[in-house]
Amino acid sequence: MKRRQILAAAGVGIAAGALVGCKEEAGANAARPAEEAKSFTWKMVTSWPKNFPGVGVGAERFAKLVEQMSNGRLKVKVYAAGELVPALEVFDAVSRGTAEMGHGAPYYWKGKVPAAQFFCALPFGPNAQEMNAWLHYGGGIQLWEEVYKPYGVLPMACGATGVQTAGWFNKEINSVDDLKGLKMRTPGLGGEVLTRVGGTVVNMPAGEIFTALQTGAIDATEWIGPYNDQALGLHKAAKYYYTPGWQEPNVTFELDINIKAWETLPADLQAIVRAAARDVNADMLDDYNAKNMEAMEQLKKEGVDVRRLPDEVLAKLKEVSAGVVDAAAAADPAAQKVWQQQKAYLARLYEYAEANEKDIYAIR
Amino acid sequence: MKRRQILAAAGVGIAAGALVGCKEEAGANAARPAEEAKSFTWKMVTSWPKNFPGVGVGAERFAKLVEQMSNGRLKVKVYAAGELVPALEVFDAVSRGTAEMGHGAPYYWKGKVPAAQFFCALPFGPNAQEMNAWLHYGGGIQLWEEVYKPYGVLPMACGATGVQTAGWFNKEINSVDDLKGLKMRTPGLGGEVLTRVGGTVVNMPAGEIFTALQTGAIDATEWIGPYNDQALGLHKAAKYYYTPGWQEPNVTFELDINIKAWETLPADLQAIVRAAARDVNADMLDDYNAKNMEAMEQLKKEGVDVRRLPDEVLAKLKEVSAGVVDAAAAADPAAQKVWQQQKAYLARLYEYAEANEKDIYAIR
Repeated sequence: MKRRQILAAAGVGIAAGALVGCKEEAGANAARPAEEAKSFTWKMVTSWPKNFPGVGVGAERFAKLVEQMSNGRLKVKVYAAGELVPALEVFDAVSRGTAEMGHGAPYYWKGKVPAAQFFCALPFGPNAQEMNAWLHYGGGIQLWEEVYKPYGVLPMACGATGVQTAGWFNKEINSVDDLKGLKMRTPGLGGEVLTRVGGTVVNMPAGEIFTALQTGAIDATEWIGPYNDQALGLHKAAKYYYTPGWQEPNVTFELDINIKAWETLPADLQAIVRAAARDVNADMLDDYNAKNMEAMEQLKKEGVDVRRLPDEVLAKLKEVSAGVVDAAAAADPAAQKVWQQQKAYLARLYEYAEANEKDIYAIR
Repeated sequence: MKRRQILAAAGVGIAAGALVGCKEEAGANAARPAEEAKSFTWKMVTSWPKNFPGVGVGAERFAKLVEQMSNGRLKVKVYAAGELVPALEVFDAVSRGTAEMGHGAPYYWKGKVPAAQFFCALPFGPNAQEMNAWLHYGGGIQLWEEVYKPYGVLPMACGATGVQTAGWFNKEINSVDDLKGLKMRTPGLGGEVLTRVGGTVVNMPAGEIFTALQTGAIDATEWIGPYNDQALGLHKAAKYYYTPGWQEPNVTFELDINIKAWETLPADLQAIVRAAARDVNADMLDDYNAKNMEAMEQLKKEGVDVRRLPDEVLAKLKEVSAGVVDAAAAADPAAQKVWQQQKAYLARLYEYAEANEKDIYAIR
């Protein structure tokens, strides 16, 4: 770093690329007039429909914050799913440089990067607070960056749903036997768990879920939580709304940045992007916590039959989940490396939570 | 707004003061060369000793982020408690303009602004996630701004401890009777609760706690949580470490900004300050969640006797707490207004949490 610092102190112009890794010195290098004048217009592809509640709003918030903070020097144009690339090709588009940025859910590209899902959601896994502690102070982000680096993508946590719901069912679930033959839309590791207990997983895009449920093409579906589920009208197509969201105690979303594009940003704009991502990571969770509560109240008022999955069913799903997660990790060396570190760390957080965060819910 | 937008679009120079309330338009008003060149050096007084783990680190992170993002256009010099003003006079100093910014805990100035404590911590009250949902999407921030406006101070949430511990005791607590005559350092509403069940509250600065506990001048103390408590060496002066932190399921810290100084900042620097505060608000919680866990492991390894307060004791404290919080609110019209709104909102969040966030802890 020394030579660069001397150059900067002497007011010698340096290429933006040479600044990568120097962001700690942004304050010290106050005089970089050529770079300050430079402005950028970036594309951000997303996995969300236009103005999608919660997660889509978060992507828009990110773009707005970056533009405000940079006084227009970094403009981010947000593209809805399908406008530039399909919902599930966000990671690929950023990797190949079609867009400088993307916003999606890590487990959408598990087919390409199996380790990605461990930064996203795990059945019977961490809630949002625990995921954030692991990511930001437990080594998670470092592993995430390492896993995505070969694809030329820099990831940042950028939004969380908090606890989801178990989903909408047109069949009562009173025992593990009731899951046998159940046709349910539920992706990811949760879907694999359902398959192992005899269910049938059917996948489809958001726009088809309502009709599939209403026509009986599927018996059940989980989506996100009351806020998004209500917007999709699922309460009009199903009899029972089950809790808790064992399959996704949280989903963390990601900001993807093309590393070559990132390296062209001056240190101040890099810092702005990082802080905007962190803002959205927290803000979206607050939004979901407030709006899920409000939507659940509305749904109950409208007569929705909200039920809890029986303990026996949850116990079986938990037992099967442990094996499914271990198997998913074992199938890929990078995933295995992440999961071994994460599993050990989460076990420590869970133990601490027993007498603290968990107990606060119990005593009040 | 129309006239201002026209002026800005025409490239006419406008005073920074006139921009207050226009931050949404920052991106549109890209051309404000005179303002962009302006730079600021601000003082930030804090309630924390130099390099204090957790909360003090958060104040330093805020200053660093703002400087990085603004490329040195807004420099924030952080002052430890006592350097410019004493720890508990941060709010006053910002109110009268001695410093443009401050970082402290809202309940430190409850003598002057009784409503402040409702934005900070409540016995048997909200955890960090719930406090954040209320503040950012439940009307909390708007009330907070309204309460501080007469003092010329703009508040922002800027850090959270998460669940604290009940504290260090040199006496076993097996029943409510054991609290009678107990001399304990525990400030705020928790202290009032202890007084009502027969304890004696002794207040003192952080630097005196260890000696007071060791010499028997006090029988017990609560401080923050394992991370900060361990740093203070409290485990070397007390026999028992009790959980859970019924008196403070979370403490939210605040960034105070002198409103007149705020109005001199261009919209981009205002956006940078807001995002930095939001970053620290999340980051500090992640830091505490990780470090509290690690510190508790260390303390247990060193043989600390960690215990849970008996249900009977917690039930009594809860009952008394409800009355103490209501009475604190009733004594001040602004506090009463805040508490009536907050109480109703939190009750809804708590009900939602029962089948969701709380249940996730139960099922795994």
